[in-house]
Amino acid sequence: MTPAALAAGREVERLLDRRLPPAEEPPERLHAAMRHAVLGGGKRLRPALVLAAHAAAGGGTDTRPLALEAAAAVELVHAYSLVHDDLPAMDDADTRHGLPAVHRAFGEATAVLAGDALLTLAFEWLARAPWPDARVGLRAVRELAEGAGHAGMVGGQQLDLDLTGAGRADEADVHAMHRMKTGALFRASVVLGGLAAGLPEDGLSALAAFARPFGLAFQAIDDVLDVVGDAARLGKDVGADRTAGKTTFVDLYGVDGARRRARAAVEEAISCLAPFGERAAGLAELARFVIDRDH
Amino acid sequence: MTPAALAAGREVERLLDRRLPPAEEPPERLHAAMRHAVLGGGKRLRPALVLAAHAAAGGGTDTRPLALEAAAAVELVHAYSLVHDDLPAMDDADTRHGLPAVHRAFGEATAVLAGDALLTLAFEWLARAPWPDARVGLRAVRELAEGAGHAGMVGGQQLDLDLTGAGRADEADVHAMHRMKTGALFRASVVLGGLAAGLPEDGLSALAAFARPFGLAFQAIDDVLDVVGDAARLGKDVGADRTAGKTTFVDLYGVDGARRRARAAVEEAISCLAPFGERAAGLAELARFVIDRDH
Repeated sequence: MTPAALAAGREVERLLDRRLPPAEEPPERLHAAMRHAVLGGGKRLRPALVLAAHAAAGGGTDTRPLALEAAAAVELVHAYSLVHDDLPAMDDADTRHGLPAVHRAFGEATAVLAGDALLTLAFEWLARAPWPDARVGLRAVRELAEGAGHAGMVGGQQLDLDLTGAGRADEADVHAMHRMKTGALFRASVVLGGLAAGLPEDGLSALAAFARPFGLAFQAIDDVLDVVGDAARLGKDVGADRTAGKTTFVDLYGVDGARRRARAAVEEAISCLAPFGERAAGLAELARFVIDRDH
Repeated sequence: MTPAALAAGREVERLLDRRLPPAEEPPERLHAAMRHAVLGGGKRLRPALVLAAHAAAGGGTDTRPLALEAAAAVELVHAYSLVHDDLPAMDDADTRHGLPAVHRAFGEATAVLAGDALLTLAFEWLARAPWPDARVGLRAVRELAEGAGHAGMVGGQQLDLDLTGAGRADEADVHAMHRMKTGALFRASVVLGGLAAGLPEDGLSALAAFARPFGLAFQAIDDVLDVVGDAARLGKDVGADRTAGKTTFVDLYGVDGARRRARAAVEEAISCLAPFGERAAGLAELARFVIDRDH
């Protein structure tokens, strides 16, 4: 991660640790599973996007606490999605971030509930955040719900299930699936950062336009790392996509082709940031990071 | 159900049918599962509570569309909770409302995702609803999240898991579990109805005070029906609690004792409605219904 993103991630982690219900408070098992899911590691890429978008939008120290709340809420949604994805009925993953998956550590029933509780808590936090204009707060709730729901992340998960094991998937279907499965939450992340800064509609559109190629680059490199990555660095198994019968960008374009497309997408993403000038340096750095990363 | 509640239920069902994503739209399987879960039946008790609370709070025709949106959102949350409860890792139920459970009809992975999508959609609908004051809309999001989350419904589910099969549970634990598992969403239902009507804080507290004994009465009768009920009327198996090793109010107090406590709780609930006068007739009728019902 970039130094700014690492610092942002640590700041959001402190907030998450402070805000998540204590594992000593009943229902202890549920709370421990929620904390395991959220605090067990991760790049905190979505919180970094929220905060970098807030900065790009000209958000100052007065609205930064709001951006941090939004960042924490988005990370809860991401964490819940991993808990449910890892379930035996879904990807059946044993480890996550180098730790036992929640269903391995706490059992399947508690994993379902911990995911449910994290998703619900994201909306609670967003609704509690100190929005100077409550209408903008409601808009943020809507954006997060749209990014996470049936027309976004969850819908993309279903398309992934539908495509998996059904033979080589169509290129357009793979793109559409990833736009929903990972792209929609990236979009919500930058839009929430913009909303926290009070950005008007045209600025929000520019951020959304950035998120789309950003998501493509991210996923293309994710697929590359699944083939050539190092399991210890990734904190998860390598080759899992192949084993699961998923059609990846590497299947479609080869390792070099996927890397080339990721680089072109990052250039496109950065070109969307022109309206923000120098203030968008953090977002541009994050976009470059997604193609240089090894995890 | 009372005639008013039946009419309210039909009105909310039409809204749900109109608003849920069409099963012909991709991801088709997810959308079909969501519709199966929500439109497959049910008493629509929570929507009836939202609308009756709205009426008790003096809400008129101008805010009724808002109350209907809130009622639909609460029903999505209830429907999602049943989908996840019925999963093999949880209650492993084959049928619900006389139909195959979602995981039986659509597979376990899609059931997890359909539940996730319904929960998310509830917050999307609530955030999109036409709140005259957006601050009240944000409060509604918070109330629903609190009622549904780790300190409410999901937390109660976890306590239920923790208590199940661990021998006869303590009376206080059984009460605390039900207050969270079913009581918290009843509370959110009436508070949302009050918020839609623009009710001030003291009125919201009176509605919340009503919900607590209402929830106790509901659960006590639920436990009675699990022992003496008719499976065809209930649309689910009879004796499931016993088989699952759950401690019920019937175990604690016997069938007659559980019925007696339910009647006393209903009287207590109705006494909380005094501040609302005649306008609370619908809520009082619902409270009487929960002890007279056979399903």
